[in-house]
Amino acid sequence: MLDIREEIIQFVENNCIDEKWYDFNHPADIAEALEGLDTEALHRFTALMDLENLARIIELANVDLQLEIINSRTNEDIIEIFSYMSTDNITDILGNLTIDKRKSLLKQMKQGEANILTKLLGYDTESAGGIMTTEYIILKEELSKKEALSKIAEIGPRTEIIDIIYINNKKDELVGTVDLRELLNVSDEVTLAEIMDENLIAVTPDVDQEEVAYLVAKYDLTAIPVINKNKKMIGIITVDDIIDVIEEEHTEDMLRLAGVHEEESINSPLGKSVTRRLPWLAVDLGMTFLSAFIVSLFEDVIAQVVVLASVLPIIANMGGNAGNQSLSVVIRGIALGDLDLNSENGKILLKEGLLGLINGAVIGFFAATVMYIIHGNPYLGLIIFLALTLNLFIAGLLGFLIPMGLKIMGFDPALGSSIFLTTILDIVGFFVFLSLAKIFINLLL
Amino acid sequence: MLDIREEIIQFVENNCIDEKWYDFNHPADIAEALEGLDTEALHRFTALMDLENLARIIELANVDLQLEIINSRTNEDIIEIFSYMSTDNITDILGNLTIDKRKSLLKQMKQGEANILTKLLGYDTESAGGIMTTEYIILKEELSKKEALSKIAEIGPRTEIIDIIYINNKKDELVGTVDLRELLNVSDEVTLAEIMDENLIAVTPDVDQEEVAYLVAKYDLTAIPVINKNKKMIGIITVDDIIDVIEEEHTEDMLRLAGVHEEESINSPLGKSVTRRLPWLAVDLGMTFLSAFIVSLFEDVIAQVVVLASVLPIIANMGGNAGNQSLSVVIRGIALGDLDLNSENGKILLKEGLLGLINGAVIGFFAATVMYIIHGNPYLGLIIFLALTLNLFIAGLLGFLIPMGLKIMGFDPALGSSIFLTTILDIVGFFVFLSLAKIFINLLL
Repeated sequence: MLDIREEIIQFVENNCIDEKWYDFNHPADIAEALEGLDTEALHRFTALMDLENLARIIELANVDLQLEIINSRTNEDIIEIFSYMSTDNITDILGNLTIDKRKSLLKQMKQGEANILTKLLGYDTESAGGIMTTEYIILKEELSKKEALSKIAEIGPRTEIIDIIYINNKKDELVGTVDLRELLNVSDEVTLAEIMDENLIAVTPDVDQEEVAYLVAKYDLTAIPVINKNKKMIGIITVDDIIDVIEEEHTEDMLRLAGVHEEESINSPLGKSVTRRLPWLAVDLGMTFLSAFIVSLFEDVIAQVVVLASVLPIIANMGGNAGNQSLSVVIRGIALGDLDLNSENGKILLKEGLLGLINGAVIGFFAATVMYIIHGNPYLGLIIFLALTLNLFIAGLLGFLIPMGLKIMGFDPALGSSIFLTTILDIVGFFVFLSLAKIFINLLL
Repeated sequence: MLDIREEIIQFVENNCIDEKWYDFNHPADIAEALEGLDTEALHRFTALMDLENLARIIELANVDLQLEIINSRTNEDIIEIFSYMSTDNITDILGNLTIDKRKSLLKQMKQGEANILTKLLGYDTESAGGIMTTEYIILKEELSKKEALSKIAEIGPRTEIIDIIYINNKKDELVGTVDLRELLNVSDEVTLAEIMDENLIAVTPDVDQEEVAYLVAKYDLTAIPVINKNKKMIGIITVDDIIDVIEEEHTEDMLRLAGVHEEESINSPLGKSVTRRLPWLAVDLGMTFLSAFIVSLFEDVIAQVVVLASVLPIIANMGGNAGNQSLSVVIRGIALGDLDLNSENGKILLKEGLLGLINGAVIGFFAATVMYIIHGNPYLGLIIFLALTLNLFIAGLLGFLIPMGLKIMGFDPALGSSIFLTTILDIVGFFVFLSLAKIFINLLL
């Protein structure tokens, strides 16, 4: 990476780029090197680049760099840069520009192009319509191999994929696909209809990108066609974009689970990170007051048997961590499509509960034994055993019920789940443990 | 799904499968339907199937179903089934069979095939060698377009991808790629060398699958070639397998973070789940005794000011949740390749620390104010403020240091991180808070 950056600085000093350089440096690496460059050097360097190479780098750059480069260019330059890019990438960039800039660009484009982009911009950015592109090969089913191949040679260079050819019928409905490998192997007069595979997996533009990713992974697809309600093909989503979707969804799951805004990253500026994490901590604080309140209800019991205070962390921590185990398995199950509202939810809830009960009893038994050995009071051990068993049982149930409840209510199942879970378990755990202590107070003294 | 299963049962009853049925039902859906069938019906149905369709279904089935079907067949059948499958899938299946069965199968295969499979079986299942397949098109650079196209038509049907053609030089070294789209557009006498792209991204077979997935995502590849140390191409990894790798790695990260064995899923049997989660809970219990011990050191202080006991859950819960926020961001940063041992780690550590300090001060201020209002003692508020600020500061630091420490020591950065983190924060948080209380005990009474 350092090498590329040094070469770039050299090019800037020489006011010229060696054309051969592009042959040995991948646009993704150049983009990465540019991300670390100061703004002046960046603009001096990109000014030296031809627009085709610049387009390839912009496609692989992060959003900040994309905007920095695009915003420094004239509309004419930008439109030429766009001519080397696929419509999904153009739409992403346009979506991040100011409304004025976007409008002025669309106005200067060819009408047909502008219409396509305006339509794409209208879809939700996290839907199939929002991530699809419009470069694909669709041919009429009556074409012969020979006719098809000449069309493919003509359209091919402008498409995202070439190994799958989509097939239209006379009503412009998408009816099947032909594998280019198969096409290359039949004789010249065979028609597409004869060799087409009618087993189509397609989505409509409103389908959520997570569902699209699920279908692509399930059916091992290289691309998935997007059709409108008249079954006319209007776009395609390729597997490289699906990888981005999967990474994005996973980041979202992992961060939201812990109560962090999904756009936070290791490189987010400090101020943004503060405001992204603080809201959940505030929710957490509010809930934590409840558990403090529960403990304060039993101050008289604790004053009499102070050792109870030192058991509270065991109850809270074990419950929280066992609950997080269930939670992770359930949220991952939902993300992988193994678990939805139609699954045998009762059975899974029962399993998670039983699991908590068994692990709670085992952990409770050990904890009770140790505390009995230290403090010499068997009843203290007994209530620790009961409290831990019950708390881990509830932890198992909540690890399932919280994310599924969020899902049923239409929220993301990961959204702050861990924060809700640990705090509810604190409250329940303390209440059970201290109530038992209060009931058996005479045996503990 | 139910429909497919009912149709399958119908076919079993009729002792015959309607050939047209395959045209309208994707093998992935058939595989899913078979997963829910009882063993007898499964075997009666698969006995009716031709081996080519059976092979396509086995490729998309889960491991249990694969083994159930394969183990019910003769070696002759299995070898014919394998002939319809790609080597990476065959290797996966062979790897799951008993050693005896695997050996007897390899013995009965053609020598060449058996040699390739034996070699593939030798690679670590989570390395590039372990996930690669051997079906790809590699052509000599001196071939003309015409010669190349006829080779492609011949080899194409047996390859995993067709849009990228790999190019060899005379020394059998992989030297570049040709895009089929570009090849279709040049005149017949142009050679591959003239249009080849020398900007190669390749891996050696020992590279970890996570690194392979990172490269494929970064460079937006459809496939990545695997080369040996003499630069000879020995395999290919396609993007659909990369999606499986990414999903697998995500599952691993998420489950390990919470202290769950990476193979656990929502459908794991109860007994397995118990033994997969219990070890981490036991580690947790051991560490939790430490925090209980810390609290017990201050029993005299708590006996005098019992309200302190009700503040403990606030300290523990806020620290744990703030720490989990940092942890999630850091582990995701590592997974996405934004954060490694070469990054500006000092700067990121500082940021996470500062972030904890700021959020800690804000949360501490609110908590202190509320406790002051309830209990009327400003000093109690003050020590809560100090303890929370310090605990969230340490939470930020540990959220970074624990996963990076695990990484430096060669462990998975996610491995049980959350359990270590929450327990260490309990210990530190209680110690700081109760020490402050002990020092200022006269002001609290």
